[in-house]
Amino acid sequence: MNVTDLHASRDFYVNALGFIETAATSEWMALRGLEEHSHHSLLLKKADKPGVHVVSYKVWEDSHLNELETFFKGKGAKVLWKDVDPAVGMGKTLCVEDPSGIPLEFFVEMESVERCIQKYDLYRGARVQRIDHINCMVPDVEAAVQFYTDELGFRVSEYTATEDDRTWAAWLHRKPTVHDVAFMNGEGPRLHHVGFWLSDPMSLIHCCDVMASMGYADNIERGPGRHGLSNAFFLYVRDPDGNRIELYNGDYLTSDPDFKPIKWDINDPRRQTFWGHKAPDSWFNEATSFLSLEKGEPVELKSPTLAQRKPDFVT
Amino acid sequence: MNVTDLHASRDFYVNALGFIETAATSEWMALRGLEEHSHHSLLLKKADKPGVHVVSYKVWEDSHLNELETFFKGKGAKVLWKDVDPAVGMGKTLCVEDPSGIPLEFFVEMESVERCIQKYDLYRGARVQRIDHINCMVPDVEAAVQFYTDELGFRVSEYTATEDDRTWAAWLHRKPTVHDVAFMNGEGPRLHHVGFWLSDPMSLIHCCDVMASMGYADNIERGPGRHGLSNAFFLYVRDPDGNRIELYNGDYLTSDPDFKPIKWDINDPRRQTFWGHKAPDSWFNEATSFLSLEKGEPVELKSPTLAQRKPDFVT
Amino acid sequence: MNVTDLHASRDFYVNALGFIETAATSEWMALRGLEEHSHHSLLLKKADKPGVHVVSYKVWEDSHLNELETFFKGKGAKVLWKDVDPAVGMGKTLCVEDPSGIPLEFFVEMESVERCIQKYDLYRGARVQRIDHINCMVPDVEAAVQFYTDELGFRVSEYTATEDDRTWAAWLHRKPTVHDVAFMNGEGPRLHHVGFWLSDPMSLIHCCDVMASMGYADNIERGPGRHGLSNAFFLYVRDPDGNRIELYNGDYLTSDPDFKPIKWDINDPRRQTFWGHKAPDSWFNEATSFLSLEKGEPVELKSPTLAQRKPDFVT
Amino acid sequence: MNVTDLHASRDFYVNALGFIETAATSEWMALRGLEEHSHHSLLLKKADKPGVHVVSYKVWEDSHLNELETFFKGKGAKVLWKDVDPAVGMGKTLCVEDPSGIPLEFFVEMESVERCIQKYDLYRGARVQRIDHINCMVPDVEAAVQFYTDELGFRVSEYTATEDDRTWAAWLHRKPTVHDVAFMNGEGPRLHHVGFWLSDPMSLIHCCDVMASMGYADNIERGPGRHGLSNAFFLYVRDPDGNRIELYNGDYLTSDPDFKPIKWDINDPRRQTFWGHKAPDSWFNEATSFLSLEKGEPVELKSPTLAQRKPDFVT
Repeated sequence: MNVTDLHASRDFYVNALGFIETAATSEWMALRGLEEHSHHSLLLKKADKPGVHVVSYKVWEDSHLNELETFFKGKGAKVLWKDVDPAVGMGKTLCVEDPSGIPLEFFVEMESVERCIQKYDLYRGARVQRIDHINCMVPDVEAAVQFYTDELGFRVSEYTATEDDRTWAAWLHRKPTVHDVAFMNGEGPRLHHVGFWLSDPMSLIHCCDVMASMGYADNIERGPGRHGLSNAFFLYVRDPDGNRIELYNGDYLTSDPDFKPIKWDINDPRRQTFWGHKAPDSWFNEATSFLSLEKGEPVELKSPTLAQRKPDFVT
Repeated sequence: MNVTDLHASRDFYVNALGFIETAATSEWMALRGLEEHSHHSLLLKKADKPGVHVVSYKVWEDSHLNELETFFKGKGAKVLWKDVDPAVGMGKTLCVEDPSGIPLEFFVEMESVERCIQKYDLYRGARVQRIDHINCMVPDVEAAVQFYTDELGFRVSEYTATEDDRTWAAWLHRKPTVHDVAFMNGEGPRLHHVGFWLSDPMSLIHCCDVMASMGYADNIERGPGRHGLSNAFFLYVRDPDGNRIELYNGDYLTSDPDFKPIKWDINDPRRQTFWGHKAPDSWFNEATSFLSLEKGEPVELKSPTLAQRKPDFVT
Repeated sequence: MNVTDLHASRDFYVNALGFIETAATSEWMALRGLEEHSHHSLLLKKADKPGVHVVSYKVWEDSHLNELETFFKGKGAKVLWKDVDPAVGMGKTLCVEDPSGIPLEFFVEMESVERCIQKYDLYRGARVQRIDHINCMVPDVEAAVQFYTDELGFRVSEYTATEDDRTWAAWLHRKPTVHDVAFMNGEGPRLHHVGFWLSDPMSLIHCCDVMASMGYADNIERGPGRHGLSNAFFLYVRDPDGNRIELYNGDYLTSDPDFKPIKWDINDPRRQTFWGHKAPDSWFNEATSFLSLEKGEPVELKSPTLAQRKPDFVT
Repeated sequence: MNVTDLHASRDFYVNALGFIETAATSEWMALRGLEEHSHHSLLLKKADKPGVHVVSYKVWEDSHLNELETFFKGKGAKVLWKDVDPAVGMGKTLCVEDPSGIPLEFFVEMESVERCIQKYDLYRGARVQRIDHINCMVPDVEAAVQFYTDELGFRVSEYTATEDDRTWAAWLHRKPTVHDVAFMNGEGPRLHHVGFWLSDPMSLIHCCDVMASMGYADNIERGPGRHGLSNAFFLYVRDPDGNRIELYNGDYLTSDPDFKPIKWDINDPRRQTFWGHKAPDSWFNEATSFLSLEKGEPVELKSPTLAQRKPDFVT
């Protein structure tokens, strides 16, 4: 994820939100949560303009990378390989774009570093524990859902349907929580937010206090509140470059084999905000562009398939 | 405080907010908090229209009632005595109107009932612990402050001043917390809210969840958030008749003899909302009328002395 | 799990701990947590003596039941089928004993009932969210671990090793949390405790308060405290029949493909109790017998393979 | 309060417990809580041996100091004046010993420094908010109570009585919380602990975690638990020199004019520990000596008037 000033980002992510900084140069900064032993779950790159380079997934073994290469090539997708990059602790990586135009990468190896979950004296701000999910606006939610479920083995936990039973938004998971990725109908592809999991609701309230103490009160865009969808106790904050981060707690396990996706009517008022203030317009309209794998230019946006609505149910 | 439907009020105050119901008839309901051994700190009366009958203060001994009678008569105020009322657990009571037109009463005796602080199995919703303060809009804040401090022995903990150093709002206390009563510049006299103290911030969050579960999500008017003024972690809710209740936690003791009143510039953005969503217009404009002691009619409202501003710093 | 008095158990599990009661007769009571849509995660049976009938696992599809039957028969184990039992919401069930002598059952279908996660007005006591794990004392931990990992697809998250590198205790999972089952060296097989997950640490503290209010203070056997192993914020309580329940919060995800099992030295003091009072002797010595599948008699106990030690690290 | 190593004390009080350090030299360190604007509420002095020099009370005005001087001289007590001490921010101070032999001092002026309640980015460990009370073992509790209530204007909030209705321990307050000072029957005078108030129970749990992370797990002597008496949610910790600090939350206001002292039977099990592990022997037997005003030698201890009992109800 691009940022324009690493010093400002460090103050925000490390001092206010409580990320652990694994490593940094003058060009990038690698961050992880307190329970993560992976080198990073968020990599910030210094750049002139905002933009998201890639969404990364770890797979179990090298053969899976090869299977993915074969699979994507069979779909006619362009496939790139990135070499091992010891600086950021990553092994060789397969890069592709998904049908919505979102740049993805898949890797097996990431350097293991110390897990800080029991270093409570390092806990700051929101005490970010681990990455939980990303949320993207895409022009065709149904196509995205079909691809991720049929081809990539994701399962739907919850979804929003229009009056004529079209899927307006959907939450999909590989790990058995509510989601690893969510798609919602909108001009895209754009990254709406990255969600990080907190161990308890008081950490979220404490983060609001710390942010206000540090002069970041205006960076709180929405919340605290609770979503009906996913039951998340949420806070949306904007980093100094406007990238949106969700601090998130209160969802549930989806590991039960007979868990059925939960359908929400788009007109159900509790779907969007179980309780809490209305989301501001910025929350509906603003999102970060993805950058193309080859040229690093913003991926071209397409208009959404379904009518625009105030999608204030995104979690 | 008038309510139109005691059954609806019981559901709201007892089941959602967690008050203890001491006693009730078809005409009224007496409520107290979990740590209170007084018969009630909030008395709801069935009526056709909203309105607040009186604000009550307990004094130490009978002689104080007589001194207050002499004092108020000396000021030319009308004074009424109410007889002992065993039904609501109150001894004889002196009733007057203060210079802003707010009906007050003073009493010595109130029936003691069981303190429920250690009956944790009765804790519900916000687990209301005790009454903390009232907040009133009055046309002349400076006159009100002068009367309460010079004549009634209150002290100012915090206040808001305009550019030309006029007192725009003030928080006054007898017990050594931030306030027992606050006044703010506005059309009045009107009751803006009654504040109840919670033992911890999680009770406030849990109350939001319980309210949403019970269908009261829209009764949450403002918050959760934190005021700069008083450091309160707050939630404003409206009861089924629109009366405003503040759930409140996080202030501090003012018992230190050399505590100096804290001055806030009316243009200081952190004064109003340390963090949190903007208050809605209803929060600025709507308040409950007081009813006159003699006729029970709404007390006539007067325009404020100072210019109207969005007073979003009221706690 | 046997209990002698369903009325007493209801008061304990439903009113004090906050389980939801799905159904009950004069012979049994089916309980579930707030986020569970399964008919029950704990089934209490009225009986004269304590004892645990069976540990149940849900599998994905009917074919898996048949594969398990073939597998266990191939091992020479006795296999029983139980018919569909609509009363307790269960489909047909395969019953076997594992190599330690623990009675297991496997099933596919369990009736779905309402998930109460957003019925916050029903939250009581510890607000039990879901079953998390069981912990058993077995005579041969290494054999048990080998069977569950090699044959049943469990993975080890953390384990304790003696000076000569023997596995003294181990935590194993299928769902990607720290464990679904733990084994520790001891006379067995016996059930040490069943662990239920809470959504936040304040629910655990509130449960202590509620238990004390209801007269259950002496049923708190150990905690609150934090285990080094698993990072669990824990409370161990004994039900009216002495069955041990762990209330549990604060562990982490193990879904990362390169998660390596964490080894603890049996002499590391932080392994056992990161902080907290020492566990009482009852916690080390007392556990509940399993009942044999065929005769319902207590399964014969065997002496442990490794020397007895105060195993105060069990989570 | 004497400590032997200021560097070790700083690590404990500032980094682990979360005190704010106002000032320090090589000889002393002045600490305050987050809501305190007074220069310090705890003053640590470097010394070879443990000991408590004096308990300090702030009074409203200079005339009160003179009245106190006259009063104590009238009682035949030795009275000392200490000069203004700008280094530690204190005005002139009147020093006496109370009837139990506890060295007291009274002052009017203490330098005001910044109140850090809204500097949430400085919150560490237990986030100590303010001093709450001291607890002393004295040989004659009834005499101490009589002196503090009759002569110094304290009121009793709660007390423990023996079978023959002798006061075994008592909690006394000037500010309207449960206590500013408590006395319990025992060899004395000795300081049992100093109690500091926390804003919420999660800060206490977080402090346990931080202490364990920093290697202070063994400094936790008792708790977390809840006292029946005072309703305190408590944690007792020992500093590196063995001085005992109580972290404390959950009591109530005693400002109601008709609040009656609460009597606890010494044999009531809930009086002592509403819930929680038993207190260790160290908690009953160990306390810190006071040092005489004139010679700085430990004040001579006297045997208690009433029979010794395990006084595990002290808050």
